[in-house]
Amino acid sequence: MNEKIIEDIEYTVKSCLPALSAETQGVNEMLIYSLESGGKRVRPLLCLMFCRAAGGKAENALYFAAAVEYIHAYSLIHDDLPCMDNDDFRRGRLSSHKKFGEANALLAGDALLTHAFHILALAQESAEVTASQCLSAVKELSALAGASGMVGGQYIDLMYENKEASPEVLFTMDSLKTGALIEAACVLGCIAASAGSEKINAARDFARNLGLAFQITDDILEYNDENNSDILNGKSTYVSVFGIEKASSLAADFTKKAVDSLSAFQNADELRDFALGLLKRKK
Amino acid sequence: MNEKIIEDIEYTVKSCLPALSAETQGVNEMLIYSLESGGKRVRPLLCLMFCRAAGGKAENALYFAAAVEYIHAYSLIHDDLPCMDNDDFRRGRLSSHKKFGEANALLAGDALLTHAFHILALAQESAEVTASQCLSAVKELSALAGASGMVGGQYIDLMYENKEASPEVLFTMDSLKTGALIEAACVLGCIAASAGSEKINAARDFARNLGLAFQITDDILEYNDENNSDILNGKSTYVSVFGIEKASSLAADFTKKAVDSLSAFQNADELRDFALGLLKRKK
Repeated sequence: MNEKIIEDIEYTVKSCLPALSAETQGVNEMLIYSLESGGKRVRPLLCLMFCRAAGGKAENALYFAAAVEYIHAYSLIHDDLPCMDNDDFRRGRLSSHKKFGEANALLAGDALLTHAFHILALAQESAEVTASQCLSAVKELSALAGASGMVGGQYIDLMYENKEASPEVLFTMDSLKTGALIEAACVLGCIAASAGSEKINAARDFARNLGLAFQITDDILEYNDENNSDILNGKSTYVSVFGIEKASSLAADFTKKAVDSLSAFQNADELRDFALGLLKRKK
Repeated sequence: MNEKIIEDIEYTVKSCLPALSAETQGVNEMLIYSLESGGKRVRPLLCLMFCRAAGGKAENALYFAAAVEYIHAYSLIHDDLPCMDNDDFRRGRLSSHKKFGEANALLAGDALLTHAFHILALAQESAEVTASQCLSAVKELSALAGASGMVGGQYIDLMYENKEASPEVLFTMDSLKTGALIEAACVLGCIAASAGSEKINAARDFARNLGLAFQITDDILEYNDENNSDILNGKSTYVSVFGIEKASSLAADFTKKAVDSLSAFQNADELRDFALGLLKRKK
């Protein structure tokens, strides 16, 4: 069933690109390069699955899902920049600043971030959602992607670049850096389905726990990948702070909590399977 | 009269800051530093004046005006970065990356950009505007600030960094780089006043012409400032392309066209005076 929605996501992500004149078409080439980088589309999938679990039609959440993916794509471009992680490669391809130059990569990130909100506004014309639902999506996404969410997490990450983070700091940082955008995806799916506050709060619980499970699993996978630079740099990870066994059991605990919070939804089988699948992933 | 609205703008810009936890309060320090950089608040003033000219109450446009100013503030931080203009100073103070480091400045810009859209969503609770008006504001601001607007202009600017721009390229670049955000300010003011398409189109005409007049006047002021680096770098400006006399007459022509388009509004005296004042400014 997910193959059809993956297709719909890929189509929507591309069909949502900004309409540009000849002089600025080059910007779209950069956006496409970034959006086609072969990610797993975890966030848009969660958005569509939450819409369905809350009793809505997945197609009504497609624009919301695409907007979240644009935010994710921008965050990867800016994260890779020399002043941040200075990564020359992402998923086996040149990172955007290596491909297009640093200034262009900065602009491509800014363009993706800005356009995410345009896509939320376009949703009103393209799906059965009201202006009020779209504006709620704007409010959630801007809070969870900005200083009170993802950007705040990146700020904490920078502060602890050269010093050890306590377990508390690590949880706060990752809840914001990774969890907040996952939360946006899940909540926007609920908004597209006109879900009430009980379901939206359950979606937040799910997302926060899944976000931590996701990040811990990432750290475990990176620990098992001997070429990884973060470990060589001595950066704090769940494995360095808790050890590999405790980190694995934490990932399982958070996944269980995430799955438990799905009881607020009538039909959440695919969400449960997806959450369990993320924990068991190999890369 | 403008002293009162300048006070209201200053108050709103600060009261709109994101609500942050203790761990991320440092982000707000960076946002405040950038928002307090002593700009002329041209865009929020235009937003409020258009709201009034279209028969609305200025206070209903305050959040829209603040959102435009957040976009302006982000664009200055990212423009100053080493990979862009590499400016160490802005209005006599250290630029954000000199003050806070490059990575933090990147994040501060991202935070301002993201939060601009949050402010548009908050407007519904804080002013007499509907979700539909707020969503129209999101749609306009995201189009005019993004790849089809301001970011597109910056992209063209980068392309012509080391080669001469034709007059056509110069007009296209500045219409996007400077004009688009001015257009957003004017259009959002009209939206806050529930203005119809005739007034909104007139506001666009005004903004496009004023934007060019504004940029040409900037180039003339920079030409007269012998310390300016752009001239030393041989970058194309209206003065280098047209000469100082023709540039001055172009600025006057565009200002006249801007003022003429105000005939669609009943009471546009303050807007006319403001436009004429911008042309005559000395810095």
